[in-house]
Amino acid sequence: MVGNSSPKKVGLAADRLASFYGRDIVSVDQFSRQDLGYIYGVADEMRSLVKRVGATDLLKGHVLANLFYEPSTRTSSSFIAAMVRLGGSVIPIHGVQYSSVSKGESLPDTIRTLQCYSDVIVLRHPEIGASAVAARYANIPVISAGDGTGEHPTQGLLDIYTIYSELGTVDGLHVAMVGDLKNGRTVHSLARLLKLYDTEMSFVAPDNLRLPQDIRDEMVAAGRTVHETDRLQDVIDRADVVYVTRVQRERFQDLSEYEAVKDYYVITPALMQEAKPRMALMHPLPRVGEIQYDVDDDPRAAYFRQMENGMYVRMALLAAVLGKV
Amino acid sequence: MVGNSSPKKVGLAADRLASFYGRDIVSVDQFSRQDLGYIYGVADEMRSLVKRVGATDLLKGHVLANLFYEPSTRTSSSFIAAMVRLGGSVIPIHGVQYSSVSKGESLPDTIRTLQCYSDVIVLRHPEIGASAVAARYANIPVISAGDGTGEHPTQGLLDIYTIYSELGTVDGLHVAMVGDLKNGRTVHSLARLLKLYDTEMSFVAPDNLRLPQDIRDEMVAAGRTVHETDRLQDVIDRADVVYVTRVQRERFQDLSEYEAVKDYYVITPALMQEAKPRMALMHPLPRVGEIQYDVDDDPRAAYFRQMENGMYVRMALLAAVLGKV
Amino acid sequence: MVGNSSPKKVGLAADRLASFYGRDIVSVDQFSRQDLGYIYGVADEMRSLVKRVGATDLLKGHVLANLFYEPSTRTSSSFIAAMVRLGGSVIPIHGVQYSSVSKGESLPDTIRTLQCYSDVIVLRHPEIGASAVAARYANIPVISAGDGTGEHPTQGLLDIYTIYSELGTVDGLHVAMVGDLKNGRTVHSLARLLKLYDTEMSFVAPDNLRLPQDIRDEMVAAGRTVHETDRLQDVIDRADVVYVTRVQRERFQDLSEYEAVKDYYVITPALMQEAKPRMALMHPLPRVGEIQYDVDDDPRAAYFRQMENGMYVRMALLAAVLGKV
Repeated sequence: MVGNSSPKKVGLAADRLASFYGRDIVSVDQFSRQDLGYIYGVADEMRSLVKRVGATDLLKGHVLANLFYEPSTRTSSSFIAAMVRLGGSVIPIHGVQYSSVSKGESLPDTIRTLQCYSDVIVLRHPEIGASAVAARYANIPVISAGDGTGEHPTQGLLDIYTIYSELGTVDGLHVAMVGDLKNGRTVHSLARLLKLYDTEMSFVAPDNLRLPQDIRDEMVAAGRTVHETDRLQDVIDRADVVYVTRVQRERFQDLSEYEAVKDYYVITPALMQEAKPRMALMHPLPRVGEIQYDVDDDPRAAYFRQMENGMYVRMALLAAVLGKV
Repeated sequence: MVGNSSPKKVGLAADRLASFYGRDIVSVDQFSRQDLGYIYGVADEMRSLVKRVGATDLLKGHVLANLFYEPSTRTSSSFIAAMVRLGGSVIPIHGVQYSSVSKGESLPDTIRTLQCYSDVIVLRHPEIGASAVAARYANIPVISAGDGTGEHPTQGLLDIYTIYSELGTVDGLHVAMVGDLKNGRTVHSLARLLKLYDTEMSFVAPDNLRLPQDIRDEMVAAGRTVHETDRLQDVIDRADVVYVTRVQRERFQDLSEYEAVKDYYVITPALMQEAKPRMALMHPLPRVGEIQYDVDDDPRAAYFRQMENGMYVRMALLAAVLGKV
Repeated sequence: MVGNSSPKKVGLAADRLASFYGRDIVSVDQFSRQDLGYIYGVADEMRSLVKRVGATDLLKGHVLANLFYEPSTRTSSSFIAAMVRLGGSVIPIHGVQYSSVSKGESLPDTIRTLQCYSDVIVLRHPEIGASAVAARYANIPVISAGDGTGEHPTQGLLDIYTIYSELGTVDGLHVAMVGDLKNGRTVHSLARLLKLYDTEMSFVAPDNLRLPQDIRDEMVAAGRTVHETDRLQDVIDRADVVYVTRVQRERFQDLSEYEAVKDYYVITPALMQEAKPRMALMHPLPRVGEIQYDVDDDPRAAYFRQMENGMYVRMALLAAVLGKV
């Protein structure tokens, strides 16, 4: 069940953590600023713990079912690492598309099977809304690892955490999101979370890949200042955060349109010279040419630290929904 | 080696458990009623342990090679969960069909390699008899997770355990098995185990999917009362256990035959009204329509508890063959 | 970084083991005889530990990313077993060819992602030199599990360790390598390590599969006595070690050439009667007919012990590069 409900898990004392214990993580919309503050505090502790001693026994005896209906090495590895560094164990279910689970069995039945074996389920699924369905049927917490072009809530959480870590605050910042803003679920999750903060946002995209109108409207309704442009050069010198995603050639029907805009969305050392001396260049990875390799040594290039933060945030979430922090 | 032989494993004291320590689990025929009673007693303890504290360190330092030549997410996940909840570790070998192990290497060579790395091997294989071959070559215990249309002994064990758990006894019960009784290895394993108890059995199947004659003869020779019918309605009001399996359309050459019988094998709430108030509705899962979803909330619907029992029985077997109970 | 450099890993005291701590394992060329002696001493301890108690907590809290771009059940299982018997955890990344990691992402980016989650990376890759590239970008140790037709250093290490274990020494021995010496990376790694010892080597191969001239020249330059022949019968009675690899039919353009030589490279009980009473018959496995099954019971058949030694040597390497021995 989604929301601040009573714990679903049987056999553990209730009320140890009112807001996260027993809760599903399926949408960024379920979080308040206080929720984020709480999770980021735990994530800070997880980082410190990993740096100091590598791992803990906090989730010893707990089992994560890591259920991936589509391959995502990066996200699945991050959850596995988070669970084992907390002392827990993992049932890796990664080739589902080839297996009997997928042969006609409904998602609810698969979920009800896995909850017999595990204490928490992480689900990646190609269909929008699959995580909410799974959460409704499960009597243990379900954490979405992305469903279709819908949400990818833990990515949004780690993105905000990275902004905090890099710049010390989120309020008062100007965040530019760049690339395919139409289809990118990470951008949608990030924008929805930024809504909670006093931020200015610039959406930088070619005309056919603009942010969906309803998300733009949400930002405005929340009182945020919003700009739209198709050229990163227009905002590069004012942005505190530049969040880059891939512009895929195959999204364009008219290839000349693609040729006309594509260079606006490639981060080069020259472009970084126009950026603020203190800012964060982010990317959910994998990149395929959107950020040139010779930008990697720039201290503002935050994308690998962003990746690492993913593990700490996921450790915090796993511990929180299992009532162990 | 199969049977009540001396322990195969080197380095552990012998005779700690005469009947299971070092033994392979490759056929239901190897078990006596005492064996089942022993394993179910341990399974009860495992259930209580998991409910109370989630896991134990009983198999700490032990390694399971989980070798699946064909995908079976459900069974492989169950064994992984069983092993990690006992504190052990798992080498998951699930994509064998794509890997070098399968490129021409013989099963005995693969087994002799894996016994260098692990303490117990779980094997799923598409060919009948593969588990017995593996057991013959291994110097560590081999547990069959199903071979071809042959046996699936741990499924049979968990099915009987579920009948005990649901109804408190097996003796004196009337068990109806429904669906494809010709090809279903779970039904064959279950029937062979039921032979050990004072049971009445009804085999409910379309004419072309009837129970093989030799298994039927086994039941009769063991003194069991046996009925055959092609309509579940004939026995639904008298059965203490209804064990449903899938009738696959593709088994019929004449599709009109399929259309004529298929509805006899779908469990609906209306049909459940004709069943005894105290009985167990079971299914090895996955189901694809044989039991309607609105039956799930019926307290007699035991199939998800059956799934959970699988983990406890497999925990008991792993601990037993490794001499730790 | 490759070589005897300062530790790359942050957060552990430096200088605990000058030669291996923080080091990558990407080529047999990086090892001296002292290095091998050290690793084999640790491998002996690992063997004794596994035989006595099965496992240890030495690497508790440490995480191995087991990154296989091509399937190799045998090698990946061996590394997983090594890590879990040391008390560590594993992120298994085995279906990379199907996943997003491989969709256009560069190897350096993948490595820099995985080092956020893990403490050591094992890499199997189809391209020569991939391990060295990975090692250059990683700030944690990288251990090659074979790259293309290039190197397979841990196989070479376990092969020499097996010779020690079987015969008590390597100096003074006559080692015959048999089969496809042109393409076999295990043979190349083994020959390069044997160079460090006072050995005589015979290279037994059909004309089109002879050892590359540059490796032969290396042996001679190192002062080793080297023979070449296309008939195993020429050397079988003088060899202390016979190291067999597969001669693949598909390597021959003229099939009559294959037919003419193939029987020279099959080990039979009859051939073993011509061999020394004290010698070691080795094979990296899997075999596909090169050694007949009825040779397996010959006490000189060392290939399954060789397989087991792989786990001990890999345990030693993992513990050493993580500074825990």
